Amino acid sequence: MSKIKKIDFYFDISSPYSYLAHTQIRKFEKDKKIKVNYCPVFLAGLHRTADITPAGLHPQKAKHMIKDLKMCADWYKIKYQFNRYFPVKTIHIMRGSVVAIKEGFLSQYVDKFFKAAWVDSLNLNDEKIFEKFLKNMDLNPESFIQKLNDPKIKDDLKNRTDNAFKKGIFGCPTFVVGSKIYFGQDRLEFVFREALK
Amino acid sequence: MSKIKKIDFYFDISSPYSYLAHTQIRKFEKDKKIKVNYCPVFLAGLHRTADITPAGLHPQKAKHMIKDLKMCADWYKIKYQFNRYFPVKTIHIMRGSVVAIKEGFLSQYVDKFFKAAWVDSLNLNDEKIFEKFLKNMDLNPESFIQKLNDPKIKDDLKNRTDNAFKKGIFGCPTFVVGSKIYFGQDRLEFVFREALK
Repeated sequence: MSKIKKIDFYFDISSPYSYLAHTQIRKFEKDKKIKVNYCPVFLAGLHRTADITPAGLHPQKAKHMIKDLKMCADWYKIKYQFNRYFPVKTIHIMRGSVVAIKEGFLSQYVDKFFKAAWVDSLNLNDEKIFEKFLKNMDLNPESFIQKLNDPKIKDDLKNRTDNAFKKGIFGCPTFVVGSKIYFGQDRLEFVFREALK
Repeated sequence: MSKIKKIDFYFDISSPYSYLAHTQIRKFEKDKKIKVNYCPVFLAGLHRTADITPAGLHPQKAKHMIKDLKMCADWYKIKYQFNRYFPVKTIHIMRGSVVAIKEGFLSQYVDKFFKAAWVDSLNLNDEKIFEKFLKNMDLNPESFIQKLNDPKIKDDLKNRTDNAFKKGIFGCPTFVVGSKIYFGQDRLEFVFREALK
């Protein structure tokens, strides 16, 4: 029997292709009874460091991307809609994901926020909606926001993002299996094969 | 029985992912006994118009792309190597492809140049190698180069590239089936399904 290799999944809630990947990873985890390691990064910062204009902010690419996302989501037979308030500004959400790691509820946190952004199309850029959403997750918005604004948490997310860039990561979703790096939800079949090899 | 829809394949010999797509299209044409319509464009011009830095000229993206290409080529079980003289400057080759369309040998021309660039890793940027290569195709280099430098041919390639951009095309390979546009060799399965639907 082969030893299943660890999959690191670099994501940002702002990235719709990360949402697509997330749904397929959840399916893979369920089928294979293994856990994928979710690695939050701040994608806007990563793009800035790598000097990349994301597809969603490039007129021709964005127009194509919106159709491509729908096509891929339909193929996966998953619930999905392009967020009406795109781009989703996720600095608070991603800092919050670091808090969620430290407090042991990242998995639930990620599920909820991916759904909020890419199924329910919530305006997460609106502070009030963000706070209400935290409350619905049984979090105290005030104390959670205080935690995610802690300079240590800010640095932690920044370091995770910088370390990802140093590994050669320049976008989301990215997957790392051993020494191999895979970019894009459309490379997931290769990722799963590598992990099970 | 459903009517098979036409596939337009927008390519440039300079694009390694176009080469990957080309190999799969040839296989598809053979299996399904249908012809795909090859549409030459000048990719460097298209990228300039769309204000896109191609992955091959971006340090992190290029490093990743080289590995990704090899992975995809291995998966397809095709002959492939990344051109040692990358970037392959294809303005003459792509103008030549317009001559080849007019003279009825585009199919052979494309096969030969894709192989030269992405299997045999020839230095097509070297005029002498380019001329020798034309001679091996039973073309008279002098007269062929004269033809491809004809202002009408230059305009023809420019118009094809501009028209592609106007359709929403911003890179290669791109596929058009009816009103649907697909970008990237990794979308070929969708393209083939749409064509056969």
